[in-house]
This record gives sequence, C-alpha cells and structure tokens, in this order.
Amino acid sequence: MTERPLITLLTDFGLEDTYVGVMKGVIKRICTDAHLIDLTHTIPPQNVTAAAFALLDAYGHFPRGTIHLAVVDPGVGGDRRGIAVRTAAGYFVGPDNGLFAPIFAISPVIEAVNLDNPQYWFTPEPSKTFHGRDIFAPAAAYLAGGLPLTILGSAILAENIVTLPLHSPRMVAGEIIGEVRSIDRFGNLITNIPAAMVEDRSWCAVVADTVIPSRTSYGEVSPGDYLALVDSNGWIEIAVNSGNAREKSGANIGTAVKIRL
Amino acid sequence: MTERPLITLLTDFGLEDTYVGVMKGVIKRICTDAHLIDLTHTIPPQNVTAAAFALLDAYGHFPRGTIHLAVVDPGVGGDRRGIAVRTAAGYFVGPDNGLFAPIFAISPVIEAVNLDNPQYWFTPEPSKTFHGRDIFAPAAAYLAGGLPLTILGSAILAENIVTLPLHSPRMVAGEIIGEVRSIDRFGNLITNIPAAMVEDRSWCAVVADTVIPSRTSYGEVSPGDYLALVDSNGWIEIAVNSGNAREKSGANIGTAVKIRL
Amino acid sequence: MTERPLITLLTDFGLEDTYVGVMKGVIKRICTDAHLIDLTHTIPPQNVTAAAFALLDAYGHFPRGTIHLAVVDPGVGGDRRGIAVRTAAGYFVGPDNGLFAPIFAISPVIEAVNLDNPQYWFTPEPSKTFHGRDIFAPAAAYLAGGLPLTILGSAILAENIVTLPLHSPRMVAGEIIGEVRSIDRFGNLITNIPAAMVEDRSWCAVVADTVIPSRTSYGEVSPGDYLALVDSNGWIEIAVNSGNAREKSGANIGTAVKIRL
Repeated sequence: MTERPLITLLTDFGLEDTYVGVMKGVIKRICTDAHLIDLTHTIPPQNVTAAAFALLDAYGHFPRGTIHLAVVDPGVGGDRRGIAVRTAAGYFVGPDNGLFAPIFAISPVIEAVNLDNPQYWFTPEPSKTFHGRDIFAPAAAYLAGGLPLTILGSAILAENIVTLPLHSPRMVAGEIIGEVRSIDRFGNLITNIPAAMVEDRSWCAVVADTVIPSRTSYGEVSPGDYLALVDSNGWIEIAVNSGNAREKSGANIGTAVKIRL
Repeated sequence: MTERPLITLLTDFGLEDTYVGVMKGVIKRICTDAHLIDLTHTIPPQNVTAAAFALLDAYGHFPRGTIHLAVVDPGVGGDRRGIAVRTAAGYFVGPDNGLFAPIFAISPVIEAVNLDNPQYWFTPEPSKTFHGRDIFAPAAAYLAGGLPLTILGSAILAENIVTLPLHSPRMVAGEIIGEVRSIDRFGNLITNIPAAMVEDRSWCAVVADTVIPSRTSYGEVSPGDYLALVDSNGWIEIAVNSGNAREKSGANIGTAVKIRL
Repeated sequence: MTERPLITLLTDFGLEDTYVGVMKGVIKRICTDAHLIDLTHTIPPQNVTAAAFALLDAYGHFPRGTIHLAVVDPGVGGDRRGIAVRTAAGYFVGPDNGLFAPIFAISPVIEAVNLDNPQYWFTPEPSKTFHGRDIFAPAAAYLAGGLPLTILGSAILAENIVTLPLHSPRMVAGEIIGEVRSIDRFGNLITNIPAAMVEDRSWCAVVADTVIPSRTSYGEVSPGDYLALVDSNGWIEIAVNSGNAREKSGANIGTAVKIRL
C-alpha cells in the first residue's frame, strides 16, 4: 500500500456521461483519502484487447502498490466474475475477461479473489448494468483504505484467471510479421512487435508495400516522410515526421506490418 | 461538511479550452485542501435540462456534504441569479435556471442564498461571460473552506428557486407514454420513465413500432437484439446487446417510448 | 512553493491514450503529495501557438508558486532544449519552443535552467519520443517536492529562451486589424486584440464584411444576432447570442477581424 492510496481508472465509459464521476463518488464515500488518476475513459466501447494493451503500457509507471481499477465489461450482468488481484506491482480490480492478462504474464499473480462478498459491494443488490459503480469501485476503495484483499471474496487460482487471445508477431522466412495494435492521437501506428525482436540488428518496416527506414527520433527524416522507430514503451512504431501516419498510409488497427532484418 | 472537502464540477465548457482548469485554479487559491471531481464537461452547450438530469443521477452517489458546482448558463451576464443551496445531501452552487430543480424535489432545500455578496467573488467586477470563474467557483471554494452558506449572499425562499418545465411520462389508455431523455456513449436510450411505474408487472416497450421485450441484463438476449431494462439509476432503458440502440433505431432525444403493461 | 504543491498539465496528447495518465504516475512516484489539475490535453497536435495562448489566459488564475507543466513538443528527440523557469507567478516546465514566451513577456524570468541533469530524469536514457514522461514530469515533480530549480540543470539566460513569432494587431488608417486567434466550444471567436486597444472609445467589429456592434453581455442582442464584446480574459470576442459565431460566419483561426473606432 502506498502512503497516500492511489487509484487509477480506465474505462470505456466516455466523458459525455457521469458514469466515471459516479464511480469516483462511491470511492470517496468509502476512502476519502484516495487520490484518483484517470488513465483513459475513451477505450473503444467493449474493446477488451485495446484496454488490455493500454493498461499494459501504463501500469509500470505508477508507484508500487497503486490500485488499477479497469472496467471494460461487455459481459456485465452475466456470469463472468469480478476479480481483485495482487502482484508485486500493485492491485488490479475489474471484470475477469482478460483485461489484466498481459500484465499478469509479466508481473505474476500473488493472490486473487472473486469479488463475491456482498458486504463490500455498494449495495446488496448490484445493478445488472453497472458493476463499475456497485462492485469494482467499492473493492478498489476498500483496498485503498487498507483492507486485505482476501476479505473481498473467495480465493481463486492464478491459472483460472481468464486470458486473452492475442495476435503475437511471428517469424516467416526471416521476416517478422506483426500488425498495427493501436493508433494514437498523432496518427502514429503502434505495432504488436517488441523492440527486443530487432535488437542489435539493422531493420526496416514494410506497410502496404511501402518500405520505411528505421530511425531513432522523428526529426531524423524530413517533415512529411515516414520513419519506423521504437516507441516510448518499447514497441515498434510507424510515424510521419510532423505528420500523420494513419492518414498517409490508410492503415488501421490490424493492418499487417512486416519487419525486414 | 466532509472532513476533506469535496467539490464536483459539471459544465458545458468542453475539454478543448481551459475554462474548467481555470475554475479549479480559482478554487485552489481559496481552498487549497479541496478535492475536485469532474462529473462531465460535455453537456450539450446551454442544455440546462440535460445538465439537470445528469446531476440528478449523479449527486446521490457522493458523500453527504459534497459541494456540487454546476455551470450551464445560457443567461450569464443577464439578470438570472446565482445561487448556493444546502439540502441534507450537500451543497449546490450555480445559476438559478432550474439546473438543480429535480434534485430539490427529492432532497428539499434547507437554506438558499442569492450569491450577491461581492466580498466572496473572485473580483469586484465579475466578467459578464464567465460567472463560473468569478462567482460560482469562489462560492464553492468558500463553502469547502468551511464558511457558512448564509454569508455568501441574501437569503432566498425555496419556492422562489427557478424550476424546470420537464416532460413527465403519462398514462394513456393503459400505456405509459414517455420519451428518450438521454443517450449514453454505448447508444443506450435512457427514458424519462421511472421503473416504479412498472413495478411488479410484466411489460414491454415500443419504440418506432418495434416491440421490445423487458429483461434484466444485456446478456439475456442474443447479440444484436433489442432489450428494455431498468438502468442503474432506476430509469427504463432501451439497449441492444453488444450493439448500439441509437444506431439500430434511429431514435434521438425526445423520441417517443411507449410501455405496454 | 505552495503549501500543497499544485501542478497543472497542458498537452496535445489527447484523451484517447494513456500518455497523460502515465505522466501523472511518474509525478506521483516522485512527489506523492502533488495535486494535479488538467488545463487541457486537446491542443491541436503540435500547435505551439495555440498552447501558448491557452497557457497565457490560464496561468494567472492559479495560486502563486503553482508549477505549470506543458508539453506540446514537435521537436522532441531533436536538439531543442527542455527548460524549467521561475517567475513571480510560479514555475514553468516544458520544451524551449516558445510555449511560455507570452507569459515571460508579462511575468519576467527570475531564473531558468536547461533540464540537462540526468540525475533528475525518469531514466538515464530518455525515450526520444516522450520527454513529457522522462524529463518534464520528473522536473515538475521534483520542484513540487521542494527541490531548488537550479539543481535540475545548467543555468540559462532569459534572453536565450525561445520566443514565438506572433501576429500582433496593428493600426491601419484608424482601424485595428487583427485576427481570430482561437475558437471555443461555443463557437465564440477570440481575437488577438486586447480590450486595452479600444478602451474608453466606442467601436464596432467587422468580420467578412459584416459589421458587428459592441456590447457588454450576450443577452443585449436578440438570440441569433451577432455581438462583439470583451471576453473574460480581456480579448475582443465575436459571439452570437444563444448561437454559434463560427458556424454563422464561417470564420476560422486566422480570419481577419477589423475594429472601427
């Protein structure tokens, strides 16, 4: 636990409605001291994979013991479990639908519970459409207040936590075949290819038959020109100096990216 | 007053400009301890009714004594009053244009003032276009700092606070006739029909000649199918499992919704 | 330094990604007490001038000693410097690309450093694409924690800080010739013409051959009609009562605005 309990929030609730604000109200009723930091609330609706990658890239920058509350929850009201999990990095609270799976592959689960103890819900009869408010926000707030994880519900085994079917890059005939995994506001294409796969070798990228040279910073090519580089989280990224690689290339999430070594 | 004073903010100022940030700066100058939580800042410009419903659904989830600062203010600079009001739920600060009226119908006014004491304004000559910064943010901050409400201006009577002309659902030939009141990011159509009107009876909804069965959670119909259900705040909602009811139905704010009992 | 260290954040990172959240995580690792306030994160990508004006209008509303962290940084990874600067108003941290220049013209630089001391970076080998996380957020956090500015890097002279080529309004044949500098969510056209240029004289504005009368508040003209007024930060603004001046006029950033005295 950090001295000042810190809770991050990531959802697909958007910023037009008060859903996120209401979750924060519930947290503050239970733990007035909690400091709250928004990661993002504009994950594409119900896109668990996009949320999982966003969390994967973000969680490691927070203090140890931070509580990460994430709600992208297409199965709300059905029979998917709600979970709270502790790793060496901190706590993770949300639906058991794979949202945290890429993190647990790196920061192994120490203990995990099914959030089935109604004593720590916001209401004995939770809404069937808003577990973020009624189950997950309270769980995060009780952890922030210092309650032990194990009191929040029945223990579950790490190997029973839902994983995510992810597209991993693969080697074919000496080339790495990956894909665009996300696109940021600047139109940079973030791939699913970790820099470790090209380390110490010279390489270039190929997107839609365009060969793109590898560089280390945007300014190394002329404005308007493509470059491929390692992004700030260690993924290979396709960019355009002072421009927008999404617009220039027409690429989208899922578009193939090849790396020639 | 909560131990750590909590102020929520709801406006139609959007997130592109610094108006909201500036209000927070003014609050922090007056009360450095205040904790600030955004409800939403993307209320459709000058839509007091949309703001009133957003507040109505949100305020009850916050700790008692929370200060709710709301600025959707088409009459700024004219002769509408600014008010601060105390109820058992907390404090409400903003223009006297009906913004809080649905809340006061449930949580009666204990005391109310016209914010006409210039000593508690940000500046003796407030801007004619930004009372959020010059009058309302300071009032909320002084309340957060522990000043009594009555010092902020002249007392006003609860019955003189402006109310809102709202469309209420009505019974016609055994059917409830209501309308779509808001649409959330997922395309769910939130109606103005409270669940209490259908309690303990079986019912279905009709939108644009489509008959929609009532269910209790999204997963009870097949992906892509309509359902009607009670939302997390007790309103009847029209949704599509794993889909978007707005897009599927073409409905908008104000579209008629019938409930057959 | 304020008693509770306050850091504002302004970027062009948008709200879709976790870049802003990650900067806040880094700050909280270094200074758990810091209070964080967002100014805006939707500055048009890489538009240093828009960011400079947004900061100029906002900074003065915050407590003295506030730390303003701003990252609109088209030159990231190149040879532009990162700076931290102290004035009587507070601290300013970000790239040395003119972002703070209009503020320094009003609130003179007391001391300034180049952020070249790697001991106060997030990592000894900063990313070439995200100095916001690796250099600027840590600098702001160390200042919030009470470290003296001068420890963060080599001293630089105020006159060597990069300035911004701004379009200033000019007098031509007894008229003021200015331009639209920004447009807010309500469609109000904010010009680069300070009210001081028309003080105590009667005036009207001309936009695209339309003559617009000067008034002091929106309600002084009929709904749908144009007016020109002094905005809440002292700039001349073109508005439409209960309407949208951008849509009505077709004006854009850079559109000429004339003032007839």
